[in-house]
Amino acid sequence: MNSALLGEFVGTAVLIFLGNGVVATVLLKGSKGENGGWISITAGWAFAVMMGIFVATKFGSPAAHLNPAVTIAEAVKSGDWSNALGFILAQILGAALGGTLVWLQYLPHWAITEDKGLKLACFSTAPAIRNPFANVLAELLATAIAIIALGSFGSIETGLGPFVVGILVWSVGLSLGGATGYAINPARDLGPRIAHAILPIAGKGTSDWSYAWVPIVGPILGAVLGALVLNAIQ
Amino acid sequence: MNSALLGEFVGTAVLIFLGNGVVATVLLKGSKGENGGWISITAGWAFAVMMGIFVATKFGSPAAHLNPAVTIAEAVKSGDWSNALGFILAQILGAALGGTLVWLQYLPHWAITEDKGLKLACFSTAPAIRNPFANVLAELLATAIAIIALGSFGSIETGLGPFVVGILVWSVGLSLGGATGYAINPARDLGPRIAHAILPIAGKGTSDWSYAWVPIVGPILGAVLGALVLNAIQ
Amino acid sequence: MNSALLGEFVGTAVLIFLGNGVVATVLLKGSKGENGGWISITAGWAFAVMMGIFVATKFGSPAAHLNPAVTIAEAVKSGDWSNALGFILAQILGAALGGTLVWLQYLPHWAITEDKGLKLACFSTAPAIRNPFANVLAELLATAIAIIALGSFGSIETGLGPFVVGILVWSVGLSLGGATGYAINPARDLGPRIAHAILPIAGKGTSDWSYAWVPIVGPILGAVLGALVLNAIQ
Amino acid sequence: MNSALLGEFVGTAVLIFLGNGVVATVLLKGSKGENGGWISITAGWAFAVMMGIFVATKFGSPAAHLNPAVTIAEAVKSGDWSNALGFILAQILGAALGGTLVWLQYLPHWAITEDKGLKLACFSTAPAIRNPFANVLAELLATAIAIIALGSFGSIETGLGPFVVGILVWSVGLSLGGATGYAINPARDLGPRIAHAILPIAGKGTSDWSYAWVPIVGPILGAVLGALVLNAIQ
Repeated sequence: MNSALLGEFVGTAVLIFLGNGVVATVLLKGSKGENGGWISITAGWAFAVMMGIFVATKFGSPAAHLNPAVTIAEAVKSGDWSNALGFILAQILGAALGGTLVWLQYLPHWAITEDKGLKLACFSTAPAIRNPFANVLAELLATAIAIIALGSFGSIETGLGPFVVGILVWSVGLSLGGATGYAINPARDLGPRIAHAILPIAGKGTSDWSYAWVPIVGPILGAVLGALVLNAIQ
Repeated sequence: MNSALLGEFVGTAVLIFLGNGVVATVLLKGSKGENGGWISITAGWAFAVMMGIFVATKFGSPAAHLNPAVTIAEAVKSGDWSNALGFILAQILGAALGGTLVWLQYLPHWAITEDKGLKLACFSTAPAIRNPFANVLAELLATAIAIIALGSFGSIETGLGPFVVGILVWSVGLSLGGATGYAINPARDLGPRIAHAILPIAGKGTSDWSYAWVPIVGPILGAVLGALVLNAIQ
Repeated sequence: MNSALLGEFVGTAVLIFLGNGVVATVLLKGSKGENGGWISITAGWAFAVMMGIFVATKFGSPAAHLNPAVTIAEAVKSGDWSNALGFILAQILGAALGGTLVWLQYLPHWAITEDKGLKLACFSTAPAIRNPFANVLAELLATAIAIIALGSFGSIETGLGPFVVGILVWSVGLSLGGATGYAINPARDLGPRIAHAILPIAGKGTSDWSYAWVPIVGPILGAVLGALVLNAIQ
Repeated sequence: MNSALLGEFVGTAVLIFLGNGVVATVLLKGSKGENGGWISITAGWAFAVMMGIFVATKFGSPAAHLNPAVTIAEAVKSGDWSNALGFILAQILGAALGGTLVWLQYLPHWAITEDKGLKLACFSTAPAIRNPFANVLAELLATAIAIIALGSFGSIETGLGPFVVGILVWSVGLSLGGATGYAINPARDLGPRIAHAILPIAGKGTSDWSYAWVPIVGPILGAVLGALVLNAIQ
């Protein structure tokens, strides 16, 4: 197996296991971290990204995109699309595995959590106020800022680069995440939504496929916008 | 366009989009981060500063002031005022753009948030207790400490300097921000207040112009005081 | 005394004093940190690990395992089991000392805390939902991810390696800790449970020995799994 | 003026302005950070120490003790007591100045805060449960651990040493601070208590002098114990 693809697959699985894991920790009934609050959720996603990057690098993908929006932004910036499709498939599959691991981690908690919406929220995102135009715009703006900041870090030595990327994700989550739950990553939303649809989760409801296109289209548009801005100032 | 001015403009826009963004996330009705608390607000502003510095550097302003108080303190320290006015205008315009992006990010939330004061708080600061002398004093002291600490960092290598500046802003916010909401930056308050006055925000109230001078005068006095102290110990 | 064993003993004592200390701070009646929440507990454990590593290194164990699961993973990876038993005994004894220090730190609080389960929770872990298979699985998965991430950090220079390990533990706690309280370390659970059984804690209840095997077996299985995965990709 | 003394004086003033500032932010009525919780208080003190160290270094004291317990521990370790008295006096005076700045920062809030105990808590520490033996023991253990960890950091390059010391203080606060409010620094308690006694704080109560010896004696005993342990393993 191509080791960059392995890195993207395993790294995204770690990202989603830890990232959706913190959502489950805060939302599922009986969890010791129940009601842990916004600071816990956003810190958890930040550290999930950081750990996903370290693991992706170890498993063979030092670029460590873990996100189709990043892969597309890099392709727009470089003009080289040859690896994009493979990376994106590996990311979606890794995200589906990560969602499955969250289900296993909290196995007895699904049956005692009554709210079907909370259970879906441990897999994929949902908007605070359902409004396709505004939801796409929010995902677009949050992703564009993330891509621009990522392209601004320059050289961070001594192995702390993944830490700074984690802080970026903490920032975007804390500040811009309240409108749509900040997918800012099509694989982060689609992979676990597939897992939610397939897995025998106790008392699960709909996988809300009517919303699934928003956290795909919004981040892709934002990634292209961010990449074009970065190209313009080179 | 002068690239240092572009850097100040874009960097301040990022600072305010993320900084005022966390206020909106915590205050606006229906936001997933509603009631996220003081730790979320102060962490959000810290990371906003960090990201604003990275982006300002990338776009051409490695000094990355993003704040007229910092620009004035640097001018007092060096005696060179030639760039000050341009920097300050770029910062105010960038801050107004950042405020506008916050409005777009949470577009459907303004109509369902009834409290007009909360909506204004997503743009500009307001005092906990309205008392011009005490409010100016609080902004002055917080800004002076920030300027003195900024001047004390020495050389932080490996690209982590913006992280340390972010922690400084986290510190000032957590510890000194309860009295006036810690503008400590005239552009951070004035630019978004202008945006609030102009934008068609659903159900908005007054832009509270009678208070607008406080977060301009207090930080400028504090910046001058901090710069004089630093000059005295050279 | 062998200084590596001294390092493991003292470092684990510091880890548990600070780690179980934050649980006591948040759970014991009358504590100034009572109800400090999930973010406090998980941050406290993260920094406890970081400090334990620094101290273990100073006292003679630069490897700074502080955890039989890490010791076993290292032995699986290297094939060298010669030091494993000594390290594990030193870790368990250190953890028992750490638990004793927590008891002393909060000496007057045990009598006024009525809930016997909360008092035991200041020493050893308990599951959110008692289900041996699911509880072992949760400990196994959390430990495996931790071992894989630990093996992925590469070289972090400038003395900040222990900080990154601390963030890893923060991540695992925030995201995966809600099911079993994330022992992910057999010594962390067994040592303080022994201390709980022996110490004259005011109004204490049972030490819940029927659960004691879970946070031993789960982390060991996870450590072996994580080590095998790391070996497979070398 | 001797610049090391100036550094200790100004650095401790910054430490206490920011450190007691976060207590005031969380406790005073009407503050925007009111009820900010344990994570805010402990983070605020951590960053206060970090900023105090940077400023002390800039103003002439690269050792940056800011704490008589650290000064005494260093003297025990080196056998050189020649600078100790001067440092300690500078620290106490700086702490009194820092307490005064907190009073100014929140000037209109003292009159509307009714609880006299909360107002004193913005200056000096008080025990959760008044018990001199247990309170001294808690301060002793917390300080000893802090001194041992401080002596274990080794070389942290690239200007991030103060950050790691800040995390140590965050750790000690989160994990061990619930019993006595973690003075772990005689100047941090005595200086502001003197300020509380002298300043015309609106509606203030007693300065609780009967407790004042505990956060002096406990940290000194802990510092000596920590230094002796470090000497024993050299």
